[in-house]
Amino acid sequence: MTMHSAKTNPGRFFEDFYPGLSLPHATPRTVTQGDVALTTAFYGARHALFASTPFAKACGLAAAPVDPLLVFHIVFGKSVPDISLNAIANLGYAEGRFLAPVAVGDTLTATSDVLGVKETSNGKSGVVYVRTTGRNQRGEAVLAYARWVLVRKRDPASPAPTDSAPNLAACVAASDLVLPKGLNLTGYDFGLGGSIAAFEDYSVGERIDHVDGMVVEEAEAQMATRLYQNTAKVHFNQFERASDPTGRRLVYGGVVISTARALSFNGLENAGLWLGVNGGRHVNPFFAGATLFAWSEVLDAQRLPGRTDVGALRLRLVATKDRPCTDFPDKDAQGFYPPEIVLDLDYWAAVPSRG
Amino acid sequence: MTMHSAKTNPGRFFEDFYPGLSLPHATPRTVTQGDVALTTAFYGARHALFASTPFAKACGLAAAPVDPLLVFHIVFGKSVPDISLNAIANLGYAEGRFLAPVAVGDTLTATSDVLGVKETSNGKSGVVYVRTTGRNQRGEAVLAYARWVLVRKRDPASPAPTDSAPNLAACVAASDLVLPKGLNLTGYDFGLGGSIAAFEDYSVGERIDHVDGMVVEEAEAQMATRLYQNTAKVHFNQFERASDPTGRRLVYGGVVISTARALSFNGLENAGLWLGVNGGRHVNPFFAGATLFAWSEVLDAQRLPGRTDVGALRLRLVATKDRPCTDFPDKDAQGFYPPEIVLDLDYWAAVPSRG
Amino acid sequence: MTMHSAKTNPGRFFEDFYPGLSLPHATPRTVTQGDVALTTAFYGARHALFASTPFAKACGLAAAPVDPLLVFHIVFGKSVPDISLNAIANLGYAEGRFLAPVAVGDTLTATSDVLGVKETSNGKSGVVYVRTTGRNQRGEAVLAYARWVLVRKRDPASPAPTDSAPNLAACVAASDLVLPKGLNLTGYDFGLGGSIAAFEDYSVGERIDHVDGMVVEEAEAQMATRLYQNTAKVHFNQFERASDPTGRRLVYGGVVISTARALSFNGLENAGLWLGVNGGRHVNPFFAGATLFAWSEVLDAQRLPGRTDVGALRLRLVATKDRPCTDFPDKDAQGFYPPEIVLDLDYWAAVPSRG
Repeated sequence: MTMHSAKTNPGRFFEDFYPGLSLPHATPRTVTQGDVALTTAFYGARHALFASTPFAKACGLAAAPVDPLLVFHIVFGKSVPDISLNAIANLGYAEGRFLAPVAVGDTLTATSDVLGVKETSNGKSGVVYVRTTGRNQRGEAVLAYARWVLVRKRDPASPAPTDSAPNLAACVAASDLVLPKGLNLTGYDFGLGGSIAAFEDYSVGERIDHVDGMVVEEAEAQMATRLYQNTAKVHFNQFERASDPTGRRLVYGGVVISTARALSFNGLENAGLWLGVNGGRHVNPFFAGATLFAWSEVLDAQRLPGRTDVGALRLRLVATKDRPCTDFPDKDAQGFYPPEIVLDLDYWAAVPSRG
Repeated sequence: MTMHSAKTNPGRFFEDFYPGLSLPHATPRTVTQGDVALTTAFYGARHALFASTPFAKACGLAAAPVDPLLVFHIVFGKSVPDISLNAIANLGYAEGRFLAPVAVGDTLTATSDVLGVKETSNGKSGVVYVRTTGRNQRGEAVLAYARWVLVRKRDPASPAPTDSAPNLAACVAASDLVLPKGLNLTGYDFGLGGSIAAFEDYSVGERIDHVDGMVVEEAEAQMATRLYQNTAKVHFNQFERASDPTGRRLVYGGVVISTARALSFNGLENAGLWLGVNGGRHVNPFFAGATLFAWSEVLDAQRLPGRTDVGALRLRLVATKDRPCTDFPDKDAQGFYPPEIVLDLDYWAAVPSRG
Repeated sequence: MTMHSAKTNPGRFFEDFYPGLSLPHATPRTVTQGDVALTTAFYGARHALFASTPFAKACGLAAAPVDPLLVFHIVFGKSVPDISLNAIANLGYAEGRFLAPVAVGDTLTATSDVLGVKETSNGKSGVVYVRTTGRNQRGEAVLAYARWVLVRKRDPASPAPTDSAPNLAACVAASDLVLPKGLNLTGYDFGLGGSIAAFEDYSVGERIDHVDGMVVEEAEAQMATRLYQNTAKVHFNQFERASDPTGRRLVYGGVVISTARALSFNGLENAGLWLGVNGGRHVNPFFAGATLFAWSEVLDAQRLPGRTDVGALRLRLVATKDRPCTDFPDKDAQGFYPPEIVLDLDYWAAVPSRG
């Protein structure tokens, strides 16, 4: 007799989430030099702080931290099997903060706590709000962020839960940003950094066309997504995607973010140290083979309490596909995005100050 | 005057092999964190034991071992220039055992010993049986397996050697399996492992559809095969493959095995530690761009001598191309495989037991 | 009001270069085990000296050096934003010497010094000659080479500078080659090296067809080029390349060199330690998807002062696309290259001697 196993993870449905539910995720993950090299190979970012041990030490750190977005992608990847396996869409991010630097040799684990749930009006699905926290091997939080996801109901007939959608901040307050312990940018080497531009040189309202364009190949997108142990099937299962109207695998949104961020080096050379993510939306799908372009806008510039060596810039990063950003393509007055815009992200970065 | 060099390795032909011949292979290879990260990027496996140093230490090991299949691919790759450069086909594997864990920093070398030879009836080729042993820098065997290969004769007129084909075991006895020294799964963290399923929860005859599907891209297959320093030209030389009836490069069989095994995480989360390979066949070629699916069957479940913390499952791993495994596609009653099945592998894995 | 930023690097034009100008490049770069693994994955080279720590130690070195070409590509990549962002063509290399081995953990920086400039006859561009020096974290030079690049003028009307083109040596003198400190190949293990061929076994005039062919995929070329943090847009921006007559991204020449060099293992197994680059030209563009082949010619063989364990071979490496090298395809009597030849490189390599 053949037994069919029920061991395969079917993923949670909307009914399985409730406020207060805490979901520790599987697969602790030691970050290695290999992850760092692959990050460079996937995106080509050139921020000196993550590329050079002596440079990082000259900035007061014990070791070169790994790119904050690598930490984000690994932590996010862990949450997929428990949160978004039956997700219809990833709706947004908020209240993201990088709380401690991660170095090669550190081991990351992650837990998601359900903040609230809200059934959609058609009764077939609902929005689940979670806060995901990544921790190192000492249990210290290194990253926390909220996200909300549209999840299928197992049974459309099941009753709607009480609406418990949380109020999430539109922007992380500059005073809540956390600088890496020991960071001291007093003697920051702008030459090695790649630009003379300091915190003082950026003005609120300033827009920067990052000029360069970069293709994301299917193999690159898949390898990056696997490196993050992100299992969402839309990125890998072409057989199934063939019956989607697009007929294509989707590039993981994190790959789009990291590619756009690497392009943003050209004009934001010294702003690699992300401190927070205020919000972000993948406003159109991105498919492999297209050329990604990006532009940035300075939304805010804040001194940090007690610091003269470093300030925080609030930046908006917009990425387009097959569309140069010379004229800063943007949403229209009604808030609608043209199809060539794929990303609209709002974040905080630390930038060295001349004091 | 132009001299044409004879330094290029032409590979051995059937006549060059005889029982007792021992072939030490070139290029000792230190395993690095980079190899580990690339393994994750190529396949996306999520077994905690290989991903996390603290998890491996909690299992009694000094360091996270590298994925046993990475060891297999590196050792196999070394044997290609000496064994299978003029091979027509790789016919099978048997008696594979992982004898000691390999950690980052270890250096692998390999030797193949010819077990026997048998000319084919048409007189143009013959089967060569070898046992390949991989060793670490201390000379300790870390892996040994037999394989047999169909090899061209240099000269069809050369006389047939005495048939010396060995008898190879259909299955490694559970009592011959070797657990990593120090391994203690008494306190195994099933939550971090990704499933509550323990040795006790699997039943002989049980079948598991691993659900997920994954494309292998040409660049991924080539990069993995190069990482293993496997030089078989069918994987790289498209110019030459253009005149093959398929017109395509073949994906290295080891890439198919590792991809199928990564898919099998979904249902076999705690069975990542392979102890032996009983047999395996690539029953149809796999070409890049197809989506790979997999299902498993529990063939046997054996307690290990003196152990209550861990048992051994004998598992059959079947992989298909562009064909989901919901209904467990299989060979027919006559033993013929449909064209969508690409792999049929039989192996032993260690699985934590509740005691 | 929207402010348009001028922070983006527009690159230097011909007018911006003058003899004596020294350009320290951005982004110091710590070399990691990940870089080493990716180098293997991109090219599949099998030289024991770079693959195995124990082998390197048996050759008298403290650690396995990283592939000299990895050092070249990283140093070259750093120079791109300062030298060749507005380059029309990379015209040639000369006087390249590897001056000290680089090990995992070393941090590379680079500086380019302008040797001379020469306006072209049409007045629209000029040739810039630079010497680029790579240094480790102790400030020791690890690599220096001259290259000359055709660079656009900002303004065709600007006056021509005095011709200051330098005289560059056609070949590095063998007596100027620098062996890694401590290198001792007296007990070189030719078996592990992959061939019994020693320095003595190669004759001036000898030609070697490296037999094997290898495809370079677009994803592989992009990932390698990003790993070197080389930002030249011809390698990444398909949207812009679509309006080039070829319609294709160009594969970075360094990828062609490293692929051809990996192919050359088959026949030059013990010649992996490059000491110098005498000259090199990318005589036709190479596009992803083609199969690369290579052949070599021994141009010279020189004993090194005071050494019986090692000699230097001067080698010519010719690479072709979609064209096997059985008959050693070459330029014609007038020096014109057929379209299938993509590379003609002249270098020195250290080869173990039997004494």
